[in-house]
Amino acid sequence: MKNFQFYNPVRILFGKGQIAALTARIPAGAKVLITYGGGSIKQNGVYDQVKAALAGFETVEFGGIEANPHYETLMRAVELGRAEQVTFLLAVGGGSVLDGTKFIAAAIPFEGAEPWDILARKAKVARAVPFGSVLTLPATGSEMNSGAVITRVATQEKLAFSSPLTFPQFSVLDPETCFTLPPRQIANGIADAFTHVLEQYLTYPINTPLQDRLAEAVLLTLIEEGPKVLANPTDYDAMANFMWSATNALNGTLAAGVVTDWSTHYVAHELTALHGIDHARTLAIVLPPMLRYRQAGKLEKLVQYGQRVWNISQGTDEERAEAAVQATVAFFEQLGIKTRLADYEVGAETIGHIVRRFTERGVKDLGERQDLQVADVEKILTLAL
Amino acid sequence: MKNFQFYNPVRILFGKGQIAALTARIPAGAKVLITYGGGSIKQNGVYDQVKAALAGFETVEFGGIEANPHYETLMRAVELGRAEQVTFLLAVGGGSVLDGTKFIAAAIPFEGAEPWDILARKAKVARAVPFGSVLTLPATGSEMNSGAVITRVATQEKLAFSSPLTFPQFSVLDPETCFTLPPRQIANGIADAFTHVLEQYLTYPINTPLQDRLAEAVLLTLIEEGPKVLANPTDYDAMANFMWSATNALNGTLAAGVVTDWSTHYVAHELTALHGIDHARTLAIVLPPMLRYRQAGKLEKLVQYGQRVWNISQGTDEERAEAAVQATVAFFEQLGIKTRLADYEVGAETIGHIVRRFTERGVKDLGERQDLQVADVEKILTLAL
Repeated sequence: MKNFQFYNPVRILFGKGQIAALTARIPAGAKVLITYGGGSIKQNGVYDQVKAALAGFETVEFGGIEANPHYETLMRAVELGRAEQVTFLLAVGGGSVLDGTKFIAAAIPFEGAEPWDILARKAKVARAVPFGSVLTLPATGSEMNSGAVITRVATQEKLAFSSPLTFPQFSVLDPETCFTLPPRQIANGIADAFTHVLEQYLTYPINTPLQDRLAEAVLLTLIEEGPKVLANPTDYDAMANFMWSATNALNGTLAAGVVTDWSTHYVAHELTALHGIDHARTLAIVLPPMLRYRQAGKLEKLVQYGQRVWNISQGTDEERAEAAVQATVAFFEQLGIKTRLADYEVGAETIGHIVRRFTERGVKDLGERQDLQVADVEKILTLAL
Repeated sequence: MKNFQFYNPVRILFGKGQIAALTARIPAGAKVLITYGGGSIKQNGVYDQVKAALAGFETVEFGGIEANPHYETLMRAVELGRAEQVTFLLAVGGGSVLDGTKFIAAAIPFEGAEPWDILARKAKVARAVPFGSVLTLPATGSEMNSGAVITRVATQEKLAFSSPLTFPQFSVLDPETCFTLPPRQIANGIADAFTHVLEQYLTYPINTPLQDRLAEAVLLTLIEEGPKVLANPTDYDAMANFMWSATNALNGTLAAGVVTDWSTHYVAHELTALHGIDHARTLAIVLPPMLRYRQAGKLEKLVQYGQRVWNISQGTDEERAEAAVQATVAFFEQLGIKTRLADYEVGAETIGHIVRRFTERGVKDLGERQDLQVADVEKILTLAL
C-alpha cells in the first residue's frame, strides 16, 4: 500500500425530504447565492423545496450554468456574487452546477490577475466562499469531493482544479429529486461513475485487497442497480443505491493508498472541449481502446476485474482481459451509450487536432506508470475511430 | 435505504514515517498533553518519534491509561490537563488510549457537576479540547470516529458516549508502529474489527447492496490478511491492510443507511466490566449464541454472509445460517480466541448478575428490531456457557 492522506469533511444529508435539513447547515444571517442549471429544478419541485428551506435567508439567484460549465458563464456569477456580497453559495443541480459553484466559490475572493489562473496556472486558492449543494443528478461525485472541471469556450480548453477549501460544507442527496431525470442523463451518470472507479482500480496491483474490493463493490452495484434505474427512474431504492454508489465512486476512499490512472479522463476531456460530446460518452469512447492498448501493463488487474466483476474465468490472461473490455463495452451499449468516434461523427482529423494540442501543452508521461506519451494517445484514439 | 447523515472530518495520515507529519497538524503554540498506556511506546521507538515530531511544542505527559480505560484514571488526566492549561491532546496508543483521550477532551472543559454525567446521563458535550492520535493497535476504529467507551471501576460499569466534538483532528496510522504487538493483541484486534462489521451487517435486508458489499469487503480482507499478520507481524503490507480494514470497519461508512444491531457489544461489555475479560474475547463469546438465538430474524443476512464471505452454498437456509456461525467461531478459534464462558472460568452465576444489572438499568428492546428483552439475553448467555 502506498502512503496516503485521506480527508473528506463533507456532511452528507441523504434521503427523502432532506432538502429541509439544509436550513440548519447554513450560518444564520448568510446571504446565499443559489446557483443552478437549465431550469429543470423549477419544473420538478426541487426549486420550491430549496426556496422553502432558505425562507429565513436573503437570497440571490444565478441560473443557466450549462453542462461542462463555461468559464465565461461562471465569471458572470462571480461578478454577481461580488456585487451582492454573498457569504454562502448553494449549488442546486448535477456535477456541472457543483463544479461551477466550486469555481465561483474560489473565484469570488481571488486576488490574482484573473481567476482563470486557478485552472491554467494552478494559482493557489487562498480563500473560498463556503458552499453547500443539493444534488439532482448522480454521476460525478462532485458532491463529496473538492475537485472541479471547467471549460473555456473561447479557447476550447477543459481544465481541472481542486483545493482543500472547495469541499462542500454539506450535500443533500435526495433520490426523489432524480425521479424526473431523462434516460440520457441517467445513462451518462452510470457510465461516468463506473469509469471513475475503473480509473482508480484498473492499474497494477500493489497489495491493496480492501481497496480492490471496495472498488468492485461500487462496480457491481452500478451494474446491478443502473439498469433498474434506467427502466424505472421512480424506483426509490434503485435510485438511492445508484446515487450513493456514484458518490462513493469519487469521494477519495477508492484512491487511498492505491495507484491511479486518469488518462482516459484526460484524453476524453478533449473530445468534449472540441465537439461538445457528453462527458460520460467521451469516457465510453476512450476507455475501451485505452484498456486494449495498455493491456500488458494492466493485465493483472484486468484479469481480476473480469473474474470478480464479470465472472470471466476462461481462457488465457490476455483473452480474459479482452473479454473484460468487451463486457465493459457491452455494459455501456446496454445503457444506450455508443462507444466509437464514428457514432458521434468524429473523424481522424480530430485526432490530429488533439495530438497538436497535447504537444503544444507539453503533455507527456500520462497514466499510472507515467509512460503514456502523445504518440500513444494518437494510437489509442485511432483504435476508437 | 434508510435516510442518514454521514459526517467524518478525521484526517488520516497513513503509512510508514507518517508520525513526522503530525507536526504540521497541531496549531502553532499549542501546549500538548501526550496520553499513552502501559509504556510499550517507550520500547518500540514510537515515543521517540512522537517527541521528535513535537519538538517545537511545550508538552505534558500522562501515561498509564489501561485497557478498558478507567474513569478514575482518566479523571487524574483531566486534573492534570486543567492544571497545566493544555490546549491540544495527542493520544498515542490503541483504542483504549484513544477512547480515554476523547473522554479527557470532553471532560476538561465540562462545566456540569461531574464528568461521569457525560456517560451516565448523556450530558451534552458543549466543548472539547481538540486532539489527534497516533494509533499503535488496529482494532476499535476509534481513530476515525467520535465514540468512546469508558469503565468505572467503583461501580463496574462500562458505558459509551459520542459527540461531534470528539472526532480526532487527525490520526496517524503507521503500520510499522504495530510490528511489536503481541499475538494476543493482534488477534483481539482482528476479532474486534470483524465483529464491528457484523453488528452493522447481520441484521435484515433493506435493499442496500452497496453497503452490504462494502461490509463484505472488510470481512473478506480481515479473514485473508488477519492470519498473515498473526503469522508475521512485521509483514508491512499485511499489517497495513489489517490496519486500514479495522478503521473502515467503524468509521460510519458501513452504517450509513442500514439497520444496525450492537446488542452483542452491549451484552459483552458486561463481561469485561465484571470479569476483566478482553473486549474482543467477550465479543467472541457473545456473538455466536446471539446469532444462533436470533437466527430467524437474521436469516436472510446470515445466508448472504455464509454465501459471500464463507462460500457456503449447500443446505437449507437454516443450515447455511448455522454453518456461517460455525465458520465465524472457527475463525475466532483460528485466531486463538476461545468462544465459551467456561473457557474463561465464568459460570452461570454471572448470567444472573448481568440480568439483575440490566433489569435495574431498565434495559429492554435491544437489537435491530428492538425486540430483544432481558429474558432473551439470559437465554443467549446460557447458550454461551
